[in-house]
Amino acid sequence: MTKHIYLFGNNHAEGSAEMKNLLGGKGANLAEMTNLGIPVPPGFTITTDVCNYYYDNNLNYPNDLDNQVNDALRQTEVVMGKEFGRADNPLLFSVRSGARQSMPGMMETVLNIGLTSKTIPGLIAKTGNKRFVYDAYRRLITMYADVVMEKAAGVETKSGKGIRHQLETILVDHKEKKGYTEDADLSGDDWIVISDKFKKQIKEQLGEEFPDDAYAQLWGGVTAVFKSWNGKRAISYRKIENIPEEWGTAVNVQAMVFGNTGKGSATGVAFTRNPATGENVFYGEWLQNAQGEDVVAGLRTPNPLNESTKTDDNQDALSLESFLPQVYNDLDAIRIKLEKHYADMQDIEFTIEEGRLWMLQTRTGKRNGPASIKMAVDMFHEKLIDKEMAVLRVSPDQIDELLHPMVDPEEETKGELLAKGLPAGPGGATGQIVFTADDAEAWKKEERVVILVRDETSPEDVHGMHAAAAILTSKGGMTSHAALVARGWGKCCIVGCGSLQINTDEKTLTINDVVLKEGDSLTLNGTAGKVYRGRLGLLSSDPGANKEYAELMTWADEIRTLKVRTNVERPEDSALARSFGAQGIGLCRTEHMFFDPKRILAVRKMILAGSEKVRRAAVMELLPYQRDDFRGILEAMNDLPVTIRLLDPPLHEFMPQNDKQINELANELNISADAIRIRISNLHELNPMLGHRGCRLGIAYPEITEMQSRAIFEATAELTKNDVNVFPEVMIPLVGTYAEFENQEAIVRKIADAVMEENSIKFNYLVGTMIELPRAALTADEIAQKAEFFSFGTNDLTQTTYGFSRDDIGGFLPDYLEQKVLAHDPFQSLDQSGVGQLVKMGVDKGRSIRENLKIGICGEHGGDPASIDFCHRVGLDYVSCSPYRVPVARLAAAHSVLKNT
Amino acid sequence: MTKHIYLFGNNHAEGSAEMKNLLGGKGANLAEMTNLGIPVPPGFTITTDVCNYYYDNNLNYPNDLDNQVNDALRQTEVVMGKEFGRADNPLLFSVRSGARQSMPGMMETVLNIGLTSKTIPGLIAKTGNKRFVYDAYRRLITMYADVVMEKAAGVETKSGKGIRHQLETILVDHKEKKGYTEDADLSGDDWIVISDKFKKQIKEQLGEEFPDDAYAQLWGGVTAVFKSWNGKRAISYRKIENIPEEWGTAVNVQAMVFGNTGKGSATGVAFTRNPATGENVFYGEWLQNAQGEDVVAGLRTPNPLNESTKTDDNQDALSLESFLPQVYNDLDAIRIKLEKHYADMQDIEFTIEEGRLWMLQTRTGKRNGPASIKMAVDMFHEKLIDKEMAVLRVSPDQIDELLHPMVDPEEETKGELLAKGLPAGPGGATGQIVFTADDAEAWKKEERVVILVRDETSPEDVHGMHAAAAILTSKGGMTSHAALVARGWGKCCIVGCGSLQINTDEKTLTINDVVLKEGDSLTLNGTAGKVYRGRLGLLSSDPGANKEYAELMTWADEIRTLKVRTNVERPEDSALARSFGAQGIGLCRTEHMFFDPKRILAVRKMILAGSEKVRRAAVMELLPYQRDDFRGILEAMNDLPVTIRLLDPPLHEFMPQNDKQINELANELNISADAIRIRISNLHELNPMLGHRGCRLGIAYPEITEMQSRAIFEATAELTKNDVNVFPEVMIPLVGTYAEFENQEAIVRKIADAVMEENSIKFNYLVGTMIELPRAALTADEIAQKAEFFSFGTNDLTQTTYGFSRDDIGGFLPDYLEQKVLAHDPFQSLDQSGVGQLVKMGVDKGRSIRENLKIGICGEHGGDPASIDFCHRVGLDYVSCSPYRVPVARLAAAHSVLKNT
Repeated sequence: MTKHIYLFGNNHAEGSAEMKNLLGGKGANLAEMTNLGIPVPPGFTITTDVCNYYYDNNLNYPNDLDNQVNDALRQTEVVMGKEFGRADNPLLFSVRSGARQSMPGMMETVLNIGLTSKTIPGLIAKTGNKRFVYDAYRRLITMYADVVMEKAAGVETKSGKGIRHQLETILVDHKEKKGYTEDADLSGDDWIVISDKFKKQIKEQLGEEFPDDAYAQLWGGVTAVFKSWNGKRAISYRKIENIPEEWGTAVNVQAMVFGNTGKGSATGVAFTRNPATGENVFYGEWLQNAQGEDVVAGLRTPNPLNESTKTDDNQDALSLESFLPQVYNDLDAIRIKLEKHYADMQDIEFTIEEGRLWMLQTRTGKRNGPASIKMAVDMFHEKLIDKEMAVLRVSPDQIDELLHPMVDPEEETKGELLAKGLPAGPGGATGQIVFTADDAEAWKKEERVVILVRDETSPEDVHGMHAAAAILTSKGGMTSHAALVARGWGKCCIVGCGSLQINTDEKTLTINDVVLKEGDSLTLNGTAGKVYRGRLGLLSSDPGANKEYAELMTWADEIRTLKVRTNVERPEDSALARSFGAQGIGLCRTEHMFFDPKRILAVRKMILAGSEKVRRAAVMELLPYQRDDFRGILEAMNDLPVTIRLLDPPLHEFMPQNDKQINELANELNISADAIRIRISNLHELNPMLGHRGCRLGIAYPEITEMQSRAIFEATAELTKNDVNVFPEVMIPLVGTYAEFENQEAIVRKIADAVMEENSIKFNYLVGTMIELPRAALTADEIAQKAEFFSFGTNDLTQTTYGFSRDDIGGFLPDYLEQKVLAHDPFQSLDQSGVGQLVKMGVDKGRSIRENLKIGICGEHGGDPASIDFCHRVGLDYVSCSPYRVPVARLAAAHSVLKNT
Repeated sequence: MTKHIYLFGNNHAEGSAEMKNLLGGKGANLAEMTNLGIPVPPGFTITTDVCNYYYDNNLNYPNDLDNQVNDALRQTEVVMGKEFGRADNPLLFSVRSGARQSMPGMMETVLNIGLTSKTIPGLIAKTGNKRFVYDAYRRLITMYADVVMEKAAGVETKSGKGIRHQLETILVDHKEKKGYTEDADLSGDDWIVISDKFKKQIKEQLGEEFPDDAYAQLWGGVTAVFKSWNGKRAISYRKIENIPEEWGTAVNVQAMVFGNTGKGSATGVAFTRNPATGENVFYGEWLQNAQGEDVVAGLRTPNPLNESTKTDDNQDALSLESFLPQVYNDLDAIRIKLEKHYADMQDIEFTIEEGRLWMLQTRTGKRNGPASIKMAVDMFHEKLIDKEMAVLRVSPDQIDELLHPMVDPEEETKGELLAKGLPAGPGGATGQIVFTADDAEAWKKEERVVILVRDETSPEDVHGMHAAAAILTSKGGMTSHAALVARGWGKCCIVGCGSLQINTDEKTLTINDVVLKEGDSLTLNGTAGKVYRGRLGLLSSDPGANKEYAELMTWADEIRTLKVRTNVERPEDSALARSFGAQGIGLCRTEHMFFDPKRILAVRKMILAGSEKVRRAAVMELLPYQRDDFRGILEAMNDLPVTIRLLDPPLHEFMPQNDKQINELANELNISADAIRIRISNLHELNPMLGHRGCRLGIAYPEITEMQSRAIFEATAELTKNDVNVFPEVMIPLVGTYAEFENQEAIVRKIADAVMEENSIKFNYLVGTMIELPRAALTADEIAQKAEFFSFGTNDLTQTTYGFSRDDIGGFLPDYLEQKVLAHDPFQSLDQSGVGQLVKMGVDKGRSIRENLKIGICGEHGGDPASIDFCHRVGLDYVSCSPYRVPVARLAAAHSVLKNT
């Protein structure tokens, strides 16, 4: 005979915490607590196997389930000394779902099962509390009608409106008629009247009587829970969370205990440590004479659990510690027992029925980032967990919380939410809006804090982006220009906020009906992509002061095998990234260096040159600047490798954008504005992403590659002479064929040889390539014949593999995510099944030719934990990400080791 | 002992035509002719193995080569009855290269080897012709100094100028001084003076004496030929033609015979059939008292070989047939013998020395398309070759020549070439230039023949493109809009012609310094991409009248296993494609149907709709039009499958482009022009190729998919009722994920079910997808779970795999081709090593799930022979191409069978 039922109660349970697959999380933990000798209302769990049987057998139960349930009821009756369905001293049950993994609110619950015309008088006699009993009865009727009779049965009400809503209307009408304001104003007799009205309405609207039989109620509830496993909400939740359908749910049938039978009763929720700070103090709330749902509903203000966690605001409130000291002591002992047993902070629910303590639930408690770190490190020192477990306890995103100021969550709940966009740069910011980069810079000089608002940003806006406290754009995706630049600086940024209508001429921003002018204030939550009107308070951050953070990161570094580099392009950012633990630069872009006003003229001369000679002369004007750039960065990264990418963007990005600028340039260069316009028009491309850029520039204009190589190597030579340990790695961008790489590599090596000879010095360097086109991955074995390292540029690789422009994805991505055509934005987290195949192919083919090929990733995915895990599994040597993601990546890399062994 | 030398002469040769790998093409054919009893000047071939030995052993020869050469010289002397290097009756040699595959002009030749101060008097005594001997001597000196002493030795002249140029200057100066105009004016004594001056100049400029020893000259010549195998020209030619370095070249040392010893001597070249028409007549030219190079140089007009091939222009010229009838008869007998032996038309060279006929070369002759077809079919009927061989004899490109009018090659040599662009649509055209589509249409109505000149074309230009005889654009690549449309209509088209400067306002076209106005004439050779000034004559084509063509194509169809479909979108084109042999439609685009003036308004309403309801109403206005479109096409393709692709291009392509059009639209729809402008701005994308298009449209706007499906299926239902056999295949474009396909497939099937029910009828249809994104190929196993067919869209697949925008490739492709970074334009011929991997992966993964998955290709590569061969090898079911490429593809598919078995 298959065992369908697992009993728990009276300090003994048939199940345990290990049996989550069969009993669900709730059932397993109830069993575990029971076995620990903790007082748990007795009951039993119907297994997830029964759920599967039910669906596999055309909604029928196993033959012997009925008998096993009856046996279990009998044994529970014995433990409680009450009987289910009996007129005197009746036993009531709750029926709750419980899947292997928590699916909060996705499935159904029915409480107070067993109240019938037969048992109600008995219960009133037993409790002497008519009001309590009829209040419980109307709760049963409401839940049962909604969950069992309407939803699970698939019956539509006559009026088309939900039955729960209809019943609530009856209650509201009654209160109005009687002049009541609170539920507490209703007497027992009021509840009797209401219960009758409820039952009449149910009969009329659903065509069936509310069942007046305890067993009918029980089976109705059990079936409703099983049915809710395939309810619409549960199915879509499972899709999002990747929960397989065959897991099924268990059903927990548990004796009811009541915290609302009188003044000696109470209910509460608590955390075994403070979930906001991580401090090892018992922290929670309780309500006298109340049911669990009352604490959650927030209609009454709950009291603090103990004296030590009282705040200025609730000094006068009655703590459980002082009201029921013995019960509190028992609860505290249970808290210590549970934490020791589970070796993690627990989120518990309890009920005190007439002075007697019952534990209703324990589960691992949620916590914020700083608290998570503190608890993990504390628990290691308390010898509850080892280092590996401590590292696993903190999620990479929780590290991120430490690195950016945040919008105060309290204030956020009250803020006026104007719009939502993509969370491109985490953290919070508040400031006055401006509409141009120049204004941002000017206002910053006047010491005003500004938020730069643009449709999209371009490299020409960089000075203003730097001056702004945050950036908000209406277009673009997670790897748009604005997003990349902001993340590099750890700056709060929201992009692709489609509901913004920006009028740059009139300097107004319209969001739905709200019109904002230049200087008006906004608050951005860049972690959530939320835009609020006005100024909300911010919470600041300072990871340097957090010694638990420092300790945890040391452990993570001991564990991980992936190195973590950073994507930066300025010496000061290099230093910052080092302070965050970066082990080198994985991507130093060189093009932004060209935008400096002192240099852009030479760049434009180069672009406008009519002959190779003139072009070469213009390019060479840039040499001293670039040499200084590289010297600064290489010096800041003393002892560490620095991957420098040669010029990548299409040339049109460097050209002036409007008539005024064109005329200025024409004057400066003494050529006609028309000549400039023709060149700009020649450079115009329909799809610049797929156009004349990357190594295609260096092949057409080898002098650019020569100049950049010379700048790198002259800086290298100079630093080497000064005993700085530099390791430049020259990276050729956008290579798709062996011949492209060979062409550019030859130039780089020729210049390296020349510089070594000119300086009578030897230095080490590598020449490698981005793998950012499908063809490069497909022919990685050819390219690896020459390339000494690969760096996966997964931004562009995602663009080309999907055929998605990251700048234009806003046109359809929202639809795709909403319709679940995509599970996530592939620019945020690497598409492992598609793009990942190419990455794996690139690694395997590359190493088949060059066994020790150094391979990294420098796309934005290098800072995403799931993508980092993928990089670890396919055998990359390092990931590279923006400075503020470095600590996140270090922790994620450690997780990958622990998860994959 | 390894045999390094293969002798030929006196009707016996050690080698044969089979030994091309060892003896090179020339050596093998000289041996073959000798064995056939054909008079060939005797000599010997030094094998290609010696070439490899030479390079593998640090430029040393095998030890016994010297002995073997000496033996061979002795035997040759015996055959000729002369001796090499002897004062009386000296034997002279030519030294020529000869690789396995002809590499015309890439390697070196030295003639007249053996002329020294010792042998010259003997030869004069023997021939009695001082002038002839010294003329030969100066030719030897010139060639030897250039080829052996300068190039092969790697010596630079003192002055830096090439030695050949310097010697020619001496000759010119001498002629000037003497008042001579022709070489023929020079006497023997003149040549003596010049020879002396030549030798003096050589000593002075190259620091070495011209060798006065026959053996030194011979070894110098042999070594120079071997060295020329690794000369710069030869290496780059090998790269282009994919000739492996290890093939090496042979060296042919052959006794000299002279056509310039007097009036009884002559030289000539001939074809065994007419290479221009294919007629089975002996066709060639000869010159009295001349050397082979004189025929080629074109300084004297050669005479016709025989009476029957005389033209109106050379009726009075002396034919060889009438001048030396016996020699002519011998030559004609050789012609017949060679053709029978080689079973192919031969290109031969001969020399008549004092009435004695010598054959110097035979090789397979080049021929044009019509000639090739006629010869192949004739030779089958003459039982020279079988059907398979006949099919292989005609190259697919030669079929293409038959389908388009051509610029008369004669006139083309005299035409003024203004510019070169990409050969986007083959054939020739001549006409007056216009600058707008509207003008093209208007002028056409006045019965003028026009060429439409644009920077690039858009779907809005289609009416003008149709009206024009040819299209010329300054931008775009081989798969740009202009190219695709023109090819579909078999229209002459040149794109990406960068040197055009078009001023549409002033209606002028400037090419370098030439300014053309509207109405001026141009002639385009679309097969070669050449633009000529004025009107050149055209040769018309009519494949229907060519019965050899029809017969050959029947044979090709019997052989091939790949089916050939066509890419068309109009009923009349469908009929044309059927007449060319198309077996279905592989790609029917639906978007061009939207541009009709009657429909575009509804399209624009749809795009501007503010709600789904309004949008749906606008979309449904298009239903009757689309239904008519599909009915016409499906009916034209009765009994054959028709693949219809759902809407693909981004919506902005349908919007008006200028203020006038915007205002008109605003009036028609009664909305503000600004509202239209905002929508256009919203639709603007930075990279539309990677933007909101393809199935991404159908997912965002399911009503478009619904309308198109309904149009297809309502047409299907109606035709099915009328007993037309229709096989619609609905193709979802730009799928990258399983979920995208699933989403759209569900809509298509829902509509199909509905239409079947409404019409109480059943019909067959398939739903499949384009594989045109790397991710689709990578996850083809997932997509094949639902998709019933795949069609590789290799245009877009090439764009995304390489990261090349086909519209912008003009910016760097010329550099790439010139620098050999790319061997060919990957949009013309499929990149088998990169993109091909994805195609193969798509096929293998798709069929791993669905064994009989129908797979085709509908990119432009479907008409390219090399790509078709690839498609055959990876197991595709069909290729699809524009109507005019269908015959080409049929033949190419037959070739694939014959080549791959």
